[in-house]
Amino acid sequence: MARHRVTFLPDGKDIEVDEGTTLLQAAEEAGVHIETSCGGEGLCGECRVRVASGKARADKHAIGFLSRDELKNGYVLACQTPVEDDLTVEVAARSRLEEEHILTEGIPLSYGQPEKVALHKRPHDPASFFEPIAGKTYLELPEPTLVDNSADIDRVTRELRRKTRYTDFEISLACLRDLATRLRQHEWKVTVTHVRHNGIGRILDIEGGDTTDRQYGLAVDVGTTTVVAQLVDLRTGKVLGVEGSHNRQARYGEDVISRMVFACGRGSLNPVHEAVIANINSLIDAVARDKRISRSDIVAVVAAGNTTMSHFLLSLMPCNIRLEPYVPTATVYPQVLASELGIDIHAEGIVEVMPCVASYVGGDIVAGVLASGLADKPEVRCLIDVGTNGEIVIGNNEWLVCCSASAGPAFEGGGARSGMLATRGAIQKMQIHDGKVSYETIGKAKPRGICGSGFIDAIYELVRNGIVDLQGKLNLTEADGRILHEDDPRYIIAFSEETDTGEPVTISEAEIANLIKSKGAVFAAIKSLVDYVGLRFEDLDTIHVAGGFGSSLDISKAVAIGLLPDIDPARIQFIGNSSVMGARMVLLSGPAFEKAVDISRKMTNIELSNYAPFMNEFVAALFLPHTDRSLFPSVDY
Amino acid sequence: MARHRVTFLPDGKDIEVDEGTTLLQAAEEAGVHIETSCGGEGLCGECRVRVASGKARADKHAIGFLSRDELKNGYVLACQTPVEDDLTVEVAARSRLEEEHILTEGIPLSYGQPEKVALHKRPHDPASFFEPIAGKTYLELPEPTLVDNSADIDRVTRELRRKTRYTDFEISLACLRDLATRLRQHEWKVTVTHVRHNGIGRILDIEGGDTTDRQYGLAVDVGTTTVVAQLVDLRTGKVLGVEGSHNRQARYGEDVISRMVFACGRGSLNPVHEAVIANINSLIDAVARDKRISRSDIVAVVAAGNTTMSHFLLSLMPCNIRLEPYVPTATVYPQVLASELGIDIHAEGIVEVMPCVASYVGGDIVAGVLASGLADKPEVRCLIDVGTNGEIVIGNNEWLVCCSASAGPAFEGGGARSGMLATRGAIQKMQIHDGKVSYETIGKAKPRGICGSGFIDAIYELVRNGIVDLQGKLNLTEADGRILHEDDPRYIIAFSEETDTGEPVTISEAEIANLIKSKGAVFAAIKSLVDYVGLRFEDLDTIHVAGGFGSSLDISKAVAIGLLPDIDPARIQFIGNSSVMGARMVLLSGPAFEKAVDISRKMTNIELSNYAPFMNEFVAALFLPHTDRSLFPSVDY
Repeated sequence: MARHRVTFLPDGKDIEVDEGTTLLQAAEEAGVHIETSCGGEGLCGECRVRVASGKARADKHAIGFLSRDELKNGYVLACQTPVEDDLTVEVAARSRLEEEHILTEGIPLSYGQPEKVALHKRPHDPASFFEPIAGKTYLELPEPTLVDNSADIDRVTRELRRKTRYTDFEISLACLRDLATRLRQHEWKVTVTHVRHNGIGRILDIEGGDTTDRQYGLAVDVGTTTVVAQLVDLRTGKVLGVEGSHNRQARYGEDVISRMVFACGRGSLNPVHEAVIANINSLIDAVARDKRISRSDIVAVVAAGNTTMSHFLLSLMPCNIRLEPYVPTATVYPQVLASELGIDIHAEGIVEVMPCVASYVGGDIVAGVLASGLADKPEVRCLIDVGTNGEIVIGNNEWLVCCSASAGPAFEGGGARSGMLATRGAIQKMQIHDGKVSYETIGKAKPRGICGSGFIDAIYELVRNGIVDLQGKLNLTEADGRILHEDDPRYIIAFSEETDTGEPVTISEAEIANLIKSKGAVFAAIKSLVDYVGLRFEDLDTIHVAGGFGSSLDISKAVAIGLLPDIDPARIQFIGNSSVMGARMVLLSGPAFEKAVDISRKMTNIELSNYAPFMNEFVAALFLPHTDRSLFPSVDY
Repeated sequence: MARHRVTFLPDGKDIEVDEGTTLLQAAEEAGVHIETSCGGEGLCGECRVRVASGKARADKHAIGFLSRDELKNGYVLACQTPVEDDLTVEVAARSRLEEEHILTEGIPLSYGQPEKVALHKRPHDPASFFEPIAGKTYLELPEPTLVDNSADIDRVTRELRRKTRYTDFEISLACLRDLATRLRQHEWKVTVTHVRHNGIGRILDIEGGDTTDRQYGLAVDVGTTTVVAQLVDLRTGKVLGVEGSHNRQARYGEDVISRMVFACGRGSLNPVHEAVIANINSLIDAVARDKRISRSDIVAVVAAGNTTMSHFLLSLMPCNIRLEPYVPTATVYPQVLASELGIDIHAEGIVEVMPCVASYVGGDIVAGVLASGLADKPEVRCLIDVGTNGEIVIGNNEWLVCCSASAGPAFEGGGARSGMLATRGAIQKMQIHDGKVSYETIGKAKPRGICGSGFIDAIYELVRNGIVDLQGKLNLTEADGRILHEDDPRYIIAFSEETDTGEPVTISEAEIANLIKSKGAVFAAIKSLVDYVGLRFEDLDTIHVAGGFGSSLDISKAVAIGLLPDIDPARIQFIGNSSVMGARMVLLSGPAFEKAVDISRKMTNIELSNYAPFMNEFVAALFLPHTDRSLFPSVDY
């Protein structure tokens, strides 16, 4: 079979593949990530690339997604284009994720700096005690004598009992086998690595000498779209570094449903599992290299993800999650050895996965409740986590009710031609003043696209300036020169001359309709849940908003487009990635893990698909800000 | 290199070996066990075999061990004789262990049949509750609905919580991965195999349908000399079968010290570990085949052994056990997977090793305390376990004091030319009446040798008839026709015409001296311990005697030779192999395991090597029955 070389720009990565391999497959093999929402089925049009040299056949699929100009300029859909020649292919910048500047946390919570959350001692709050689930303890043991000749392991645990919070210990056979030699080789001066397991101390390793200055943990948010990892010093609780990357499972589908369809249908679970493991390993590699630490000094990983992500991470069968009556294999997961999953840290290191509530209320939201302190105080508060799913929790220290609604990837920059994650070059704020558009990008770079907070601003500004009506239709006369007249008309936020990619940053009528659906679903879910518990918005002491919008979400604009309820903006807090924050709290506090389990058990999940009023609320919310204006008294358009 | 064929009689097993291989090595390779005490160093003379055909050089070592007649008749020491010709070699019957009729338990304890021990409900005695540490539970689960769509594992544990004594459960990742499929494949009717682990229920397996009629456990006594395994039905507590075999570690030395020397010096730990694992696997194989059960239906093994045996079993470093200050790696062992040790039962089956007290007070004695109920009642009682070490425990439900003294293998039939284990053909009782010798063998077979209880009888009868004096010297004039006049004169118990082997069963002056040393060490240990706790023999409510003497130990004769204290014989009970009995109790009762740990922690070990009065007691006891006759008022000679 003929072989051809494909070179991907701007990376310059190249690979030789068999004739007939698709460009998408070739990119995967070359390690070049191209975003797709449909998993490579030719249905989303997101994987378009430009063939700069060599011959490639334009596919009939492409016609629905690419403009005439694009087709003329050599654009193709990577997933539908077989390699039949040596090719050079340009991958648009916004299809590649810059592994930097990924938003991990928003404004600090009221009780301190994010990195101090778990350290801060709030009375009666076990989660606030600094008791890392894993750690190292240095021991100088007295040598045995005829009078004190207890067994080696008893000599170790006797001293550990004094120096740690554990009273009981367990040890693996492998570790016990080395014990006698190691103690004597190192003259009874050793460092014990231990981890909390079912309330007792599990001894992972016994090293010679004092190595307590090298003990690290990893807090991971396994999102459907992105995976974010924080490297944490377990001695101090300090976050040493953050890395993020696209979830490599995207090649099997952009959302959880299509990945489950792949894993349970034509594909198998293993590649989807291995994709996220490869993800985590490459993040570990990056953060360890960057901070010049050894991977083997990372002794614990705490991961938070939605229920499907948690199943994929542990390689548990997720197939019943998507079928009525939506049953996961487990919502509370056993502590596992990192080596069982192929995660490359300390040979005996462990992985703890944040407990979930139900098939569509995951460990990420439990982490969010933990991080926001929702379950700590008597005041009734609300947590809204907008990811690919919108998840809502209402409650206090006595009760917690939650629900989730499919929001789609719109607020994470998915499903839109100019949409991108909140990384360098994303337009995160925009304004239209006196007909003039101004914007602000992440990292002050030339624009490459627009992220969630930018879209919210855009919709608000377009409505306020009469360019978009309350149903989301573009008023073509109002925006002369900034409208691209295509089948789906587009408003130009940044002209091609201004951008890094040479393509304009735009928002189309269909994309606005999508965003309205997304915000409508989230708002309807909030409204349904508030009604369900018999409250009004005014009764909510605080609303914590979490998600990947970008770091500068404009709360009042999010209210004005009808995404968030119209309460005093001072009572709405944007907290960013609460999932990784909660994972880190668990990493730094054993009791926090127990609290997370408690939260997951306490939370009552309302299946909105079963809750009749939801659909009415959703339909009523498909308007800017809402069909019922009395819900949004402060909105001035 | 030249190769030669060696055929071993009476088995007929043969093997081809390189020239220069010793006969002992050849026998091992052929699977023929030849007993040695010295580990093949030419120091014990026990491995003598007769070369029936082919040429073999008599070695200079042999002269010290073999009589002129034996040398003339082709006897050689197998360990010192290189193969230089095709040979046929006769292995004496008593060097081979018949894998049948091995004594496992003596008279039933007062509170019931041995197999009922763990079933019998004594008030306030947790060990008596029938709660097998492993077992199976059949579940018929309701199918999930939208109203009851809890996670699969929660559906399982919810029901398990009702049907077992556990409130918390843990599950391996492997088992969790299969769960969803298995539940649905078998229409929510499954059998869960679970084991007690740190007080919570560890789920080992989930099978389709009801398999609760197939759940077995194994209680194993890992003795220095023999390994005995009982197959137990975990549903009923019934002992289904018993198998025993020589401890294959014997090739590395007959006693624990020489095995430790091998493992820590010229050899390595691994072969010694693997030898006992091979032992256990062949016992499992034998008992499973015999009872027509599948090895994979054995879900748990509980093993009891002395501290060194426990280390070898788990492959823990034993090297500090034999060096002052005698420190074991561990005395309480983690529950391990059978697969970690290479024990071939259920793929996820577990092994629990009985806790030990100190380097020379092992899990066998803890098992004995458990089985005898010593720690259950307020009355002060004593347990004497005579194996290769003599171990003594005194105590009650409040305190336990123990010690051990090296007794040597004499009472297990070791170290004597006619000595043998208590198996078929062993003389277990003998009497001299009016100058006539009568005896009784195990299995009513022709004599092959003499076991521990037979030796005790023999010494008593010889003294009572004036053939042996109170110092153990043979009175040559008193036994005309029954004395073999060799360098070490021998009394003939059974003439060669009477025996199965064609060799006489004899006891020599040196062997009697050995037995006196053994009984002296055991008695001195008992006496020292009784003195240590400030009691007199009369204060002991009961003395439980355990060990491999044979099933028909004559208590009054054991007293008369000064092995046991001279108290009312009705208060002395022979209980046989209390080690396997205790292991079985743990298998059948989780609380019994906790009790065993409690016993091991509670027991105070007196190191006799540190205890000055012991040596005086030992010297005083090297007489029949004792230099202080006032200690043995009932003895009539």
